[in-house]
Amino acid sequence: MTDDVQLLGISNAIVDVLAHVEDSLIEQIGVVPGSMNLIDEQRAHEIYEMMGPATEMSGGSVANTIAGFANLGGRAGYIGRVSDDQLGEIFNHDMRSLGVDIRLQPAPNGAPTARSHIMITADGQRTMNTYLGACTELGVADITPEAFGKPKAVLIEGYVWDIAQGPELARKAMELAAKARSTVALSLSDSFCVERHRESFAAAIRDGAQIVVADEDEINVLMGTDNFDDTLEAIRDYENLFVMTRSDKGSVIVHRGEQHVQPATPVEQVIDTTGAGDAYCAGFLYGWVHDRSLAECARAGTLCATAVIQQVGARIEKGVLD
Amino acid sequence: MTDDVQLLGISNAIVDVLAHVEDSLIEQIGVVPGSMNLIDEQRAHEIYEMMGPATEMSGGSVANTIAGFANLGGRAGYIGRVSDDQLGEIFNHDMRSLGVDIRLQPAPNGAPTARSHIMITADGQRTMNTYLGACTELGVADITPEAFGKPKAVLIEGYVWDIAQGPELARKAMELAAKARSTVALSLSDSFCVERHRESFAAAIRDGAQIVVADEDEINVLMGTDNFDDTLEAIRDYENLFVMTRSDKGSVIVHRGEQHVQPATPVEQVIDTTGAGDAYCAGFLYGWVHDRSLAECARAGTLCATAVIQQVGARIEKGVLD
Repeated sequence: MTDDVQLLGISNAIVDVLAHVEDSLIEQIGVVPGSMNLIDEQRAHEIYEMMGPATEMSGGSVANTIAGFANLGGRAGYIGRVSDDQLGEIFNHDMRSLGVDIRLQPAPNGAPTARSHIMITADGQRTMNTYLGACTELGVADITPEAFGKPKAVLIEGYVWDIAQGPELARKAMELAAKARSTVALSLSDSFCVERHRESFAAAIRDGAQIVVADEDEINVLMGTDNFDDTLEAIRDYENLFVMTRSDKGSVIVHRGEQHVQPATPVEQVIDTTGAGDAYCAGFLYGWVHDRSLAECARAGTLCATAVIQQVGARIEKGVLD
Repeated sequence: MTDDVQLLGISNAIVDVLAHVEDSLIEQIGVVPGSMNLIDEQRAHEIYEMMGPATEMSGGSVANTIAGFANLGGRAGYIGRVSDDQLGEIFNHDMRSLGVDIRLQPAPNGAPTARSHIMITADGQRTMNTYLGACTELGVADITPEAFGKPKAVLIEGYVWDIAQGPELARKAMELAAKARSTVALSLSDSFCVERHRESFAAAIRDGAQIVVADEDEINVLMGTDNFDDTLEAIRDYENLFVMTRSDKGSVIVHRGEQHVQPATPVEQVIDTTGAGDAYCAGFLYGWVHDRSLAECARAGTLCATAVIQQVGARIEKGVLD
């Protein structure tokens, strides 16, 4: 290996705007409770107007994983587009302060930094309305050999396919990965995202994404099944490494006939499940870049997910694996 | 009374940037643990660089009180200067979403919206480094009769005296209050602030601030005593209403010879004491504008403070007094 990072993330750089809301607000806004919706700037302002006082913190699914990976002590890099504004400064600060190597400069023009309006109802469910802003302007031209480097692994999120040049820039990243002998991991993001891009994801998994990170719903949609047993049957013949989380049912790792089932760790009180999958992914890949067995990787992932569901906020703290 | 608000706040409009840090960072930055320091933009960037990942939320001492007062169901207005930037939008959104009537438009030019870098050490202590930015440009010209209106009470924070036109704009507000028959309350902010402006505060209390809100340290510094008993002796001859909080020793209200001691409510676990004084002030003034007895006001203040120390964050939630 070179001196480059162990894990490079390519994803949407988003600042979360979190507020507790009444169920009626979700209805009033007219979205499905628990869903992630992509909205334009106008609607972002409207929805923000309807929300109560909020807390802001850096977010984004794969960005959370990268932050967690760095916090565990891993060497991480990140490609995502923020604007040269205050939210962009917050996002980059939070990544850099963990030692993440930010590969793109904030964009001096274009749309403002992305934000996701996250409404938390009394049952703990989160409904997201995301204005992608600057993220939508991430382009093929940003994925240069210099920005890409020679990471041991690159983790790309499914949400990238939602942006205009997303499929093309993902393809470019996979080409650079092949040249740099980097392993490509694809995180499926959410089941609606898988529905939007099922064919493209299937192609990516066939053509170069050696690792597939998904929760049960996402992998079921990808495989076109309605239950996990059928999914296990469907992925039996794949060469890829499948890392699949099943919330309180734990996780299942499948690789060329080998299957490892990792039970969830019982916890006294679940505070906030946000980011559990992202944290699992951070722990798993931290084990993976250190050439640990799949069972050890699954245990590391579980430790991280267990830690994150017992705190408020999606990003894991230092020392979780110590 | 007119239809105007019950309570108008005039204070520094600040977005808090909160991060957990090691004790050594406070030392490295070279400030006194637990202190509030005023810094310039350059140093704000330096300190932010040294901090880990942070969470952003609207703050500011009297702004917290105004937000809390509105959340209790009170009609509140607010005069504070933010810039027309993302942090300014966040600050105003959070106030407006509680129904607070924002009296100033965001400034289209000048310094960016203020932020306070709040470093929380393992012992729960908070060390603040505040870049006042746009706040420093609040001017006498902003305190118009239209912006002031005819509130039942106006609450001005001591920190206002730290800004260039602060003493003058406070004087203007007190003149408008006299004309509008509004009661003036002065919050002493912090004991260092009292040291900086002791003579001015004494004059304000003599010349029109009928209500003085302070914690034990602040009132001791103002009265030039080193213990609370001597302070009680010193304020015996004042006409003003003194509202004094003493953390776990509860609070003491003194008004023209009348004294009411309100014990603190024991709680199982103190989560975060930030904003306890601001919340107390919100509850007390909520009672006061509704013409409750001083004992009832003190109980309302205590209920609010008790609620806020059992949560993370300085601003009280709805329904605390229900």
